[in-house]
Amino acid sequence: MSARPHVVIIGGGFGGLRAAQGLKNAPVDVTLVDRRNFHLFQPLLYQVATGSLSPGEIATPLRGVLSKQRNARVLLGDVVDVNPKTNSILLADGAIIQYDFLIVASGTQSSYYGHDEWRKWAPSLKSIEEATEIRHKILYAFEVAERISDPLVRASWLRFVIIGAGPTGVELAGAIGEIARQTLKNDFRSIHPEEAQIILMDGAPRILMPYPEDLSHKAAKSLEGLGVQVRTGVMVKGIDREGVTAMRGSTEVRLNARTVLWAGGVAASPLAVALAKNTAAETDKSGRIKVSADLTLPGFRNVFVVGDLAISLDRSGKPLPGLAQVAMQGGTYAAKCIAKKIRTGEGLPPFKYFDKGSIAVIGRAAAVANTFGVKLSGLLAWLTWAFIHLMYIVQFESRVLVFIQWAIQDLTFSRSSRLITGSTTSDFDFNQELAARRSDPGAAENQVTVSAR
Amino acid sequence: MSARPHVVIIGGGFGGLRAAQGLKNAPVDVTLVDRRNFHLFQPLLYQVATGSLSPGEIATPLRGVLSKQRNARVLLGDVVDVNPKTNSILLADGAIIQYDFLIVASGTQSSYYGHDEWRKWAPSLKSIEEATEIRHKILYAFEVAERISDPLVRASWLRFVIIGAGPTGVELAGAIGEIARQTLKNDFRSIHPEEAQIILMDGAPRILMPYPEDLSHKAAKSLEGLGVQVRTGVMVKGIDREGVTAMRGSTEVRLNARTVLWAGGVAASPLAVALAKNTAAETDKSGRIKVSADLTLPGFRNVFVVGDLAISLDRSGKPLPGLAQVAMQGGTYAAKCIAKKIRTGEGLPPFKYFDKGSIAVIGRAAAVANTFGVKLSGLLAWLTWAFIHLMYIVQFESRVLVFIQWAIQDLTFSRSSRLITGSTTSDFDFNQELAARRSDPGAAENQVTVSAR
Repeated sequence: MSARPHVVIIGGGFGGLRAAQGLKNAPVDVTLVDRRNFHLFQPLLYQVATGSLSPGEIATPLRGVLSKQRNARVLLGDVVDVNPKTNSILLADGAIIQYDFLIVASGTQSSYYGHDEWRKWAPSLKSIEEATEIRHKILYAFEVAERISDPLVRASWLRFVIIGAGPTGVELAGAIGEIARQTLKNDFRSIHPEEAQIILMDGAPRILMPYPEDLSHKAAKSLEGLGVQVRTGVMVKGIDREGVTAMRGSTEVRLNARTVLWAGGVAASPLAVALAKNTAAETDKSGRIKVSADLTLPGFRNVFVVGDLAISLDRSGKPLPGLAQVAMQGGTYAAKCIAKKIRTGEGLPPFKYFDKGSIAVIGRAAAVANTFGVKLSGLLAWLTWAFIHLMYIVQFESRVLVFIQWAIQDLTFSRSSRLITGSTTSDFDFNQELAARRSDPGAAENQVTVSAR
Repeated sequence: MSARPHVVIIGGGFGGLRAAQGLKNAPVDVTLVDRRNFHLFQPLLYQVATGSLSPGEIATPLRGVLSKQRNARVLLGDVVDVNPKTNSILLADGAIIQYDFLIVASGTQSSYYGHDEWRKWAPSLKSIEEATEIRHKILYAFEVAERISDPLVRASWLRFVIIGAGPTGVELAGAIGEIARQTLKNDFRSIHPEEAQIILMDGAPRILMPYPEDLSHKAAKSLEGLGVQVRTGVMVKGIDREGVTAMRGSTEVRLNARTVLWAGGVAASPLAVALAKNTAAETDKSGRIKVSADLTLPGFRNVFVVGDLAISLDRSGKPLPGLAQVAMQGGTYAAKCIAKKIRTGEGLPPFKYFDKGSIAVIGRAAAVANTFGVKLSGLLAWLTWAFIHLMYIVQFESRVLVFIQWAIQDLTFSRSSRLITGSTTSDFDFNQELAARRSDPGAAENQVTVSAR
């Protein structure tokens, strides 16, 4: 047993990993616990969902990142409870881990606003698995459409609805627009992929609400250039196997679409519930935890909450957005704070977020950015975006190749990861779907005839 | 309805794809049917299983490959029956497709020699999904070992048994040796991955039986240099959750190992059964179909069987090996034959396989090759191997990057695709496994203590 303080970090995302790295030279033992063995570069997840990148290209093994940091260890484990009163956490396998300092950075998960039954029909984009599921769904839709001749049914397979017009929704819609118009252009014989309808809907009056209004409009215009229909001020009422029902004012709208994707909202990870229960910490409606000015849990000076899980306020009293930058700066701050507490017994002045701006990408070589008060759009915004992301990724490994590859694909419109992999259940669905069409007596014209064209 | 003959090809592997491409300028309509939407470069599948490459890097969408060939279409479908008497095939979704010419190239699947219950404990390496499952299994084994302190139990998690010492088994064993000795060297804190035991076993008297004896011995020596123990003349008797039971002569041997991989044998795809049933074609013990000298099904001059599914004999009467080369040459031959039959009503002289040799890779920058009677080993064989594979892959797309990446990783020992993805069931198993260890009263020393090291 060593006498060095034990720092436990929950979550190997942007916040947790930065915290671990920030403690490199501190006289502590660090244990980073995550359910997954990799750090995921979430901002590029939509590229996996749309077949431009492979999972391995946007994820780095946590052990690899920390292998040279001798005071850090990685533990693969699922944290199910946190008890700040006993300074311990509990893993799903029953192990109890004691800590001197704890950094909770377990992030958020997607939220269906109380309609979890929608998840089945409209996957969201939070994990590698969901990204490959979405890829599967998108590509399969074209495959099924190729096999169906009824124009209405075919159209519903070629209609893609993305719910939620934040950065993720915008990026997904733009990428699907490109898949339909460019990538798959010559790939089919019965359908014209470019006739696919891509609909981006949101309840807000405009897309990309956190951005200035003129950038929102520019983004909407770029999207329309990619064939994406933007529908704002529309509230989703229901999602089922066949499509989406929504309200525009008091009018009910029905969209028959076999591919519906959810980019709607996020909620805190279940750990927030455990934390709140054990400490009476305050949470907001999406379950995120209100932290003190030094990012600690009120009443527990040795427990930090950083990243999306925390609500910390900026100088004007507005909560900070759920961005990688906020998480990284929070993680670094918590690490410094712990090091200082060990050295001097005192913490640091309140956490201040340094806003470097935000960027959303709209398809090939176009983006909107809002950095340091400068508003960019088009190619210049895209180049900024590419540069920032490149800088981040190369920190870890010689991942420059990812970007070379990505740039080449962007120029050639090819997508190397256009694979439909995964469970055979889906193949079964595919067969069932076509068989159902075939046995439908009212759909005799749907017979697939392939003997000669 | 066009009057052009309809050529249906079952399977988009090496044989089927070459056949489709070979018909590019023939006055026919080609339909390529496959259950998957991609062509898989199977010889590099072990690289996915061992985390060096991503699935997207060894697979190319079939539609993309054939998008510019206007007389070809791709159909995603599962062929469940073939009836040469009615010139038709049946898909799982109920569709019936008529053909004028048929090329069956559906390949083989792994065979457990009547012991399908072993599959659960010893996955084989045939599909992308199995490759990622194997990757999952290998990486998880190190993760579990890190969490267990009982030396015997830990050793069984750090013992890897590969059954079958053909090229796939040799390549897997070599790659796992490198993972343990190089890739993961600094990644763990409780275990030393380089202490992992890797055992390659086979019933034959030496590894790589189809190769000349001296190359076999060189390969075995290279493997031992990577820490792989080669055990020949050992017959597997049973595989279970805890390991392998085998017979060495009349002595029973028991190996406790939590990771067992099957590289044992192959059997024809289920379509062979359908073909045999409907035509009384002869099959061998692994279900492959005996074809005529022009690769047609005896009695059916318009049905070709190419690749692993067919047994065709070389000039000396020996069956041709199950190599990509044999399949590709067979596919090209069938295409030429069909084109000639349409043009002149006559076929071609018997198929002759042009043997370019074979190569097996043993870890980093080492291989054994037997080409045109020249036997190579070491770096030179590896360079030959890399060059041949590179040539093949670049045919399709600008995939040069795959090889640049691969070469860089080879130099740096890093593996960019070291992700544990997939169902949460496995995470559940992981938790259960550790929980079981914990509740075992005789294993109190297995308690994970992570509070301070």
